[in-house]
Amino acid sequence: MAVYTEVPDDEMAAFVAGYGIGELLAVKGIAEGVSNSNFLLHTTQAFFILTLYEERVDAADLPFFISLMEHLAGRGLICPQPVKAQNGSAVGRLAGRPAAIVTFLDGLSVRRPNVAHCAEVGRGLALLHQAGADFPMERANSLAVRDWRPLAEKAGAAADTISPGLARRVMAEIESHERSWPDDLPRGVIHADLFPNNVFFIKDRLSGLIDFYFACTDALAYDLAICLNSWCFEADSSFNLTKGQALLAGYESVRPLSEAEVAALPQLCRGAALRFLLTRLVDWLNVPPGAFVKPLDPLEYDRKLAFHQRVSDARDYGLKR
Amino acid sequence: MAVYTEVPDDEMAAFVAGYGIGELLAVKGIAEGVSNSNFLLHTTQAFFILTLYEERVDAADLPFFISLMEHLAGRGLICPQPVKAQNGSAVGRLAGRPAAIVTFLDGLSVRRPNVAHCAEVGRGLALLHQAGADFPMERANSLAVRDWRPLAEKAGAAADTISPGLARRVMAEIESHERSWPDDLPRGVIHADLFPNNVFFIKDRLSGLIDFYFACTDALAYDLAICLNSWCFEADSSFNLTKGQALLAGYESVRPLSEAEVAALPQLCRGAALRFLLTRLVDWLNVPPGAFVKPLDPLEYDRKLAFHQRVSDARDYGLKR
Repeated sequence: MAVYTEVPDDEMAAFVAGYGIGELLAVKGIAEGVSNSNFLLHTTQAFFILTLYEERVDAADLPFFISLMEHLAGRGLICPQPVKAQNGSAVGRLAGRPAAIVTFLDGLSVRRPNVAHCAEVGRGLALLHQAGADFPMERANSLAVRDWRPLAEKAGAAADTISPGLARRVMAEIESHERSWPDDLPRGVIHADLFPNNVFFIKDRLSGLIDFYFACTDALAYDLAICLNSWCFEADSSFNLTKGQALLAGYESVRPLSEAEVAALPQLCRGAALRFLLTRLVDWLNVPPGAFVKPLDPLEYDRKLAFHQRVSDARDYGLKR
Repeated sequence: MAVYTEVPDDEMAAFVAGYGIGELLAVKGIAEGVSNSNFLLHTTQAFFILTLYEERVDAADLPFFISLMEHLAGRGLICPQPVKAQNGSAVGRLAGRPAAIVTFLDGLSVRRPNVAHCAEVGRGLALLHQAGADFPMERANSLAVRDWRPLAEKAGAAADTISPGLARRVMAEIESHERSWPDDLPRGVIHADLFPNNVFFIKDRLSGLIDFYFACTDALAYDLAICLNSWCFEADSSFNLTKGQALLAGYESVRPLSEAEVAALPQLCRGAALRFLLTRLVDWLNVPPGAFVKPLDPLEYDRKLAFHQRVSDARDYGLKR
């Protein structure tokens, strides 16, 4: 669930009146995204999504996210298009928070992706990387290798209350990556959170990408590693090689991987699993009382990490060479 | 917040395919209503609301609620119109629950109604009573006078943990109503829960009524008493006579009250305040662990009840005679 802030009627009406999008006819709080409050707006012109950015999004990063969505939409990628207010700005303030209005995007996210979905998302990810190639702004990945140790320290020994030995396993993995993380791979804009809930489909065809609030400048192949983690494992944490083949082939149909990227893929997959393990671990150990959102299971990514630790060749993910 | 049930993609698609409403393009869980799960649907034809009826709604009552909405919409009242599935039924099953699809209704509910809103809702309530006059089905009010004592007994002495003496005050009030509740007032279909969150406006004009899941057959003037309670008090529990005048005049512009209704109004207002005090009290004392919904304050209705206990004449609510 994701409506954390109630907006008084008059403030909402005044805010929407600042955009040239017609008269407000309806507002519904919607359950989308986990970091922000989202509202569906209906006006005399169209449907829109209004997002109030809550604490987890740094307001200083909003120009990057908003400009990126504008840039990608301008390159033909289907993603929400920010609407500029009459004062020319795409980021306003509502109920004491930064706020933006974007176009309503049709499509359904899938909870259990099939092989066709994996092929589509591989292709879509490569199209995103292509469309972002000439995006002029930069944003450092705030969950990169150097950020993992502080997260592990925040979790501390309490990690072992979730799974015996987890704190030690995590720290060994961090040390290994700190020594050997590749820093010379092709870089560019990455989505960095392209999980199934952020991809829309209509009838098995990808119809749009949403939630660019982790997007940053990093190794393109790391984005692919995140997708291998989030799209190609079954509910029992077994890796589905057919899905891996489909995702990688879909990606390479648009943007073939370099030899360095292929060689790095197993480590990037381990790193991606570790990154989600760490943030889930910290969230799990710090659930605020009365929280609306049930934290995601960190051990799902502990199991995926264990799989990656046994992989030494990108062909084990289904890469055809 | 009101999405209690997650629906698997394939079940949702199969369910919607059973209606002749086009292809499914988007589904959003929305925060509307408190007893049921609601989803906004977008299809190639239009926008709709899908409701999954959770435990608080008795499935045996659904034919009454659905037929009532069909009847009222057929009489020109603006309310959600149930959509029949291709098998002819307006109530199906989804995710193990009864489910219905209704048309999407534009409009915004107001959190702080003004005098114009009160006039509109008074008129709208009378139009509802008129439109329901020839509705052939009946449903007993499950929160009528006879149901109040069991609610008070369920709360028991714990009521005093919320406010000293509350258990005794409530029981004295119940005994008084059990002896003297009027049973000869004009009856018909009443909404029975026409709070501001269930009334939509566009630019201060009433644009629709929703949430008929407490609707029943009872004294029409009792519905008016519920509205006086829910629309005409300020946040500090003071009664706004100007709003009362507007609401009553709006009602009587369509359906003038009989002398018996006028005479009974102060008692009906006391009873209505007591009914919401009792259900809120039980909810307050029985919050399940991990509940999403914060229970509403019972003492708001204790304060309103105290106001009504000092009223002896309907003119004190703003009725012009």
